[in-house]
Amino acid sequence: MTERTPKKTELMSEAERDAYHAEKMKKKKEARNRILATKTEERGLLIVHTGKGKGKSTAAFGMVFRALGHGFRIGVVQFVKGAWGTGERDVLEKFPEQVTIKAMGEGFTWDVADRQRDIAAARAAWDAAKAMIADETYDMVLLDELNIVLRYDYLPLDEVIETLRAKPHDTHVIVTGRNAKDELIEIADLVTEMTEIKHPFRAGVKAQKGIEF
Amino acid sequence: MTERTPKKTELMSEAERDAYHAEKMKKKKEARNRILATKTEERGLLIVHTGKGKGKSTAAFGMVFRALGHGFRIGVVQFVKGAWGTGERDVLEKFPEQVTIKAMGEGFTWDVADRQRDIAAARAAWDAAKAMIADETYDMVLLDELNIVLRYDYLPLDEVIETLRAKPHDTHVIVTGRNAKDELIEIADLVTEMTEIKHPFRAGVKAQKGIEF
Repeated sequence: MTERTPKKTELMSEAERDAYHAEKMKKKKEARNRILATKTEERGLLIVHTGKGKGKSTAAFGMVFRALGHGFRIGVVQFVKGAWGTGERDVLEKFPEQVTIKAMGEGFTWDVADRQRDIAAARAAWDAAKAMIADETYDMVLLDELNIVLRYDYLPLDEVIETLRAKPHDTHVIVTGRNAKDELIEIADLVTEMTEIKHPFRAGVKAQKGIEF
Repeated sequence: MTERTPKKTELMSEAERDAYHAEKMKKKKEARNRILATKTEERGLLIVHTGKGKGKSTAAFGMVFRALGHGFRIGVVQFVKGAWGTGERDVLEKFPEQVTIKAMGEGFTWDVADRQRDIAAARAAWDAAKAMIADETYDMVLLDELNIVLRYDYLPLDEVIETLRAKPHDTHVIVTGRNAKDELIEIADLVTEMTEIKHPFRAGVKAQKGIEF
């Protein structure tokens, strides 16, 4: 027979547990307020979503929508054709005055393995991205799947890092894609890795509208 | 002097590298198509976003917007007050015919440490969630920060697991929040963990509009 040591709260009456909880929450709140008081700077962030899991572009897309609600002007460059589905596009197009999308229709794709064409498309997308970053009327610029293009050496890493490092002070830039370069992580303010714990493909479920695209 | 072994592609001419790349992409595409051919099932998924990093609710929010673009009807229950900012709310309210939001205004919060009130609010939110899940006119139901409520034992885990396991076949359900219970991960179809690699708080930058809220 195995015995489990009961948790402290399990030995308490409901009233004791309420009081214990109230005290614990009070301490948490005080600790949080002390930390927040030291955070005073406001500036545009360089944000990276990487890792092999899902949600990198989707979370960036969620940030774009949150920012739309705040009246931000947002530029989006898609470095990989078809990474976003028609769902995202249809909703974004309801905000034409706030969002500019540069979809590299001729961009990198698994479907046509033409490396020189991909390099030229990556360059055109990057030039559009540089122009958006330099234009301070944009509050936020999303460079979707830029990491993929960098991984294949389709753009000079030094040039990309230098542009991102020198971005305008107030502009938020979001970079997505697996295999983010160390040099990018080094200069980023906020880096989140999405890890796949469980995936429905393993159970034979196919890609579905509203989930995968 | 240290010498690095050059990568295979670095020893190639540009033309050789193009041909090598084309062959590699062709093989990748064939492998992908073979895998996709085995995925035939369509059904509503139980999706979990967990982990200590950012992006759990934001990626769920992105999925809601993608689904809006496909004409889905979507229910949202917020188990934690203030987890979403006004940005999300303002944009969602532009789609009143497709989205129903139940914000538990009296829900769990760090600001008032009243455990009995939190338990009652969690129960009210969960009853609203159960009604949405049972109503097959919803294509997708987002249970934002449900994991937090489960972690504090504010709802009976067995009841929540049983409801999610018995959800209608075609309904997608998304659950967010750190510390997802093992029992939830066990029955989920798609689980992604968001891990924090780097956070701007460490550099003294405060929470900002359009990024944190």
